[in-house]
Amino acid sequence: MTAQRADARRNRARILAVAEAEVAAHGADASLEQIARIAGVGSATVRRHFPDRRSLLEAVFSQRVDALCSRAADLADADDPRTALLDWLGALTTYAASARGMADALVPAGTGGGNHVDACSARLGSAVDPLLHRAARAGAVAPEVTTADLVALVTGLALATEHHPTPAAEAHRLLALAVRGISPRG
Amino acid sequence: MTAQRADARRNRARILAVAEAEVAAHGADASLEQIARIAGVGSATVRRHFPDRRSLLEAVFSQRVDALCSRAADLADADDPRTALLDWLGALTTYAASARGMADALVPAGTGGGNHVDACSARLGSAVDPLLHRAARAGAVAPEVTTADLVALVTGLALATEHHPTPAAEAHRLLALAVRGISPRG
Repeated sequence: MTAQRADARRNRARILAVAEAEVAAHGADASLEQIARIAGVGSATVRRHFPDRRSLLEAVFSQRVDALCSRAADLADADDPRTALLDWLGALTTYAASARGMADALVPAGTGGGNHVDACSARLGSAVDPLLHRAARAGAVAPEVTTADLVALVTGLALATEHHPTPAAEAHRLLALAVRGISPRG
Repeated sequence: MTAQRADARRNRARILAVAEAEVAAHGADASLEQIARIAGVGSATVRRHFPDRRSLLEAVFSQRVDALCSRAADLADADDPRTALLDWLGALTTYAASARGMADALVPAGTGGGNHVDACSARLGSAVDPLLHRAARAGAVAPEVTTADLVALVTGLALATEHHPTPAAEAHRLLALAVRGISPRG
């Protein structure tokens, strides 16, 4: 790799890291100028890597999906399949609660979801399915529950707690309620 | 009541009924002209009862909250406290899944909720608390679960399934998962 390419790669990684923090703090309409300033690069450098807001948001989203996939892989052979699945759900909830406005920004209203979001969902499914199947084999989760169900549920909790004074804590509290069941006894 | 006042009351009720159906079909930005046309009144009549879109949406929302309060009162002395609570949660889910965009339209972004929404939440709490406490006394729900928790959870499921081909069915399916618990066994 040339020094120039190494530089470009470092810049891209720094812009992404700053963008993720800014989206967590200000939502999907975080200022691109502010992101460039904090990352210590010019607006032109941001635009060279990410021509528009959507491509930057997609890269932030994709990077976090990668992190959630790695976490699932790390947990795949943990001692307790139930704890492993719940740890992963906790990580997903923390992310969903910090990615304010991301879903709305990436999924155009009235469609079934953008191609990029669909591709990320598929990647997430492949990474989490082993964790989920292991928990199901251990009897810790019903066999018909899918990764998509869990992602929908957690996304919903994040959306419903968005305006709460402490959104992440509230989303985790509601997740715990959904995990143990509102009324598990029939 | 004069014939004129009875007429005005009937018009208002008809406009509200049509508005509720149009919001369910097209979301909170349903056309006011279309609502007037279907209700068989002029746009001026709609404006006389509801000066702007927000006041119409508030009235639609308020009417449905009243219906959910009545349903809770009807269920308050049902035979089985658990079934009664789950019936009410089902009614709430059906409503939340049909009130597309209503929450976003009524709660300005970044605030803790509009006064109107807060007032409706308080009314809902008073009506549902007896149902919830009875279920808790019967051991069907944990004593620390609040009406606000259940409303947040169901609202989240409705938001998360908004873009699904069959939103209501999907929201009910995820509600059933949250009721029995993702992984109730510790």
